Amino acid sequence: MQPTIEESFVRYVKEYQEMCGSYVHVYQKPPTPLEFLRTSVHPNRPAIIKGAFDDWPARTKWTNQYLRSTMGKVPITVAITPNGYADAVTLDKITGKEYFAMPYEKVMPFDRFIDTIEGKENSPNKHYISLQNGSLPAEFSPLEKDVAPHIDWCSEALGKQPDAVNFWFGDSGSTTSLHKDPYENCYAVIRGEKTFVLFPPSEYYCMHESIYPGAVYEPNSTTGSLELVPIHPPTKTPWIPVDPLSPDYTRFPRFRHAKPLIITVQEGDMLYLPALWFHHVLQNGDQGVIAINYWYDMEYTNSLFPTMGLFRDLVAGVLDGTNLHSSDSDKNSDSE
Amino acid sequence: MQPTIEESFVRYVKEYQEMCGSYVHVYQKPPTPLEFLRTSVHPNRPAIIKGAFDDWPARTKWTNQYLRSTMGKVPITVAITPNGYADAVTLDKITGKEYFAMPYEKVMPFDRFIDTIEGKENSPNKHYISLQNGSLPAEFSPLEKDVAPHIDWCSEALGKQPDAVNFWFGDSGSTTSLHKDPYENCYAVIRGEKTFVLFPPSEYYCMHESIYPGAVYEPNSTTGSLELVPIHPPTKTPWIPVDPLSPDYTRFPRFRHAKPLIITVQEGDMLYLPALWFHHVLQNGDQGVIAINYWYDMEYTNSLFPTMGLFRDLVAGVLDGTNLHSSDSDKNSDSE
Ligand SMILES: O=C(O)CCC(=O)C(=O)O
Ligand SMILES: O=C(O)CCC(=O)C(=O)O
Repeated sequence: MQPTIEESFVRYVKEYQEMCGSYVHVYQKPPTPLEFLRTSVHPNRPAIIKGAFDDWPARTKWTNQYLRSTMGKVPITVAITPNGYADAVTLDKITGKEYFAMPYEKVMPFDRFIDTIEGKENSPNKHYISLQNGSLPAEFSPLEKDVAPHIDWCSEALGKQPDAVNFWFGDSGSTTSLHKDPYENCYAVIRGEKTFVLFPPSEYYCMHESIYPGAVYEPNSTTGSLELVPIHPPTKTPWIPVDPLSPDYTRFPRFRHAKPLIITVQEGDMLYLPALWFHHVLQNGDQGVIAINYWYDMEYTNSLFPTMGLFRDLVAGVLDGTNLHSSDSDKNSDSE
Repeated sequence: MQPTIEESFVRYVKEYQEMCGSYVHVYQKPPTPLEFLRTSVHPNRPAIIKGAFDDWPARTKWTNQYLRSTMGKVPITVAITPNGYADAVTLDKITGKEYFAMPYEKVMPFDRFIDTIEGKENSPNKHYISLQNGSLPAEFSPLEKDVAPHIDWCSEALGKQPDAVNFWFGDSGSTTSLHKDPYENCYAVIRGEKTFVLFPPSEYYCMHESIYPGAVYEPNSTTGSLELVPIHPPTKTPWIPVDPLSPDYTRFPRFRHAKPLIITVQEGDMLYLPALWFHHVLQNGDQGVIAINYWYDMEYTNSLFPTMGLFRDLVAGVLDGTNLHSSDSDKNSDSE
């Protein structure tokens, strides 16, 4: 009997799961470049690295008090949402429509952000420093000296410098929704802990990626509370609508075949998050959770990157009738 | 407009071609393990390595005279065919059917093989030493000391020893037909030159892989000339029927989208042939062409290996209605 596209993908998803299991390599100390490339990057498998940044001043110095005194009134960009979900598919209760909801981005003095994290501002909203444009040098340069400019064994393994270094500061009220990035990611948890819910690229089929019109949270001019405002002219962003921790299998039946790999990264540990792995990220910690991550461009010639384009054509295109490939949906092609 | 499976694959094939071009990296001297893994293995791109085995005694010692004196009457296995095509899809003129034709494997004293290569035996057939079961230690152990037991920078890059080391000895009368292997391959040309016609794994769609019943060449008991004898009970081998140097586009229309990368490996040079690249191999050289190759197990977790299984299901299965996945066609799953 001739298989269908659906059956072919289900078989592929299962074969990868059987072959790779849920083992996550733990390096007890930073790997050599060769070991890292051979054991983690080339196989495209996540890993935990212990002791990767014991020597960074940030590890001991980054109390809220130190951060207040160092950053003080420096203006920084904060992602604000009513529910802690920025860049996520969101049902707008007013219109009954689903949007790719982007946060209200507010520039404020750093010490005011710390006030919100410490509960000193009486805001109904969630605040998260989560800009991914190389935010460390862009907005937090007074803190740069407290961390390494790059991860030496990773830079040597990949033969390049990081494309972006980002500073993350939030609390358990904010969650990062399921998506993938075309980057090799070294993610260092400096304060608190972060839980990554991961799915391999082979499970693209299960993700029900689709296209959503963009909307941005804006404060209502009268009440001040955040409301979703659709973007005009409408944008189209491919995104994953499934909540992996409470999946709606009726709407997203293919997600039944997905198998999460859940990794909690403790304070002082680093996660190697391989390119194109889907990730949903939660956080936990008194007084806020802080991380620094290093994004390195992925290898574009081996089969992983081009194959993801094929999967989109076959799954979103042939099966679902949604064209995600054409350039008009490329707005968010860097991080989706 | 919603794409079809065919359109999706054509787009994928073209995108890979545009992204990667036809550039082949040339190492002017043997790479470091890290350099090799980063520049060639992880990107899954072929390369030429110069000076990789200048220090092997084989480079200067392996004249036919030396080989005769060292191997002498040692029995070795020779693949014999009437047309130089062993392990190739072949039209049997008598039955009008296509078979996966396997050579007549004859054990003979090494010096008799040299006679055939030197034209001293008046045979209408082509003779090729091309067993791929680790033939160097198995049948040519007197020659082992003249080459390296493994390729040190490759073994260190991959973190393992070769799975098999093979000895190849043939002439321009014999050709190796288009196929792929689940191995990283370091191929050292010791005498003569070899031309590799290569296609990336992304071009699986173009290959028209299908299933063929097996047949073996046997000498006719009266005339002695080689004839194809179908195997009973019938075997099923997935193989590629296209001759890449003179493709029949009417029978194999998808092959129009394939783009060969043709590399001639000169005497003294090594080819890195990445895992799952399709290769068709020709050879040239007076007095015979000799090579040694090292097969290293490929990485089974990154997307390349599992994805090839998906392609088989989608292309041979969904498009062509041929199930290549089930275990009954796994006979040749190691090298196909
Ligand atoms: O830390 C987070 O909330 C998300 C991290 C992330 O998505 C990334 O590093 O790519
Ligand atoms: O040298 C040849 O004829 C074929 C080589 C080959 O197929 C291999 O090394 O895998």
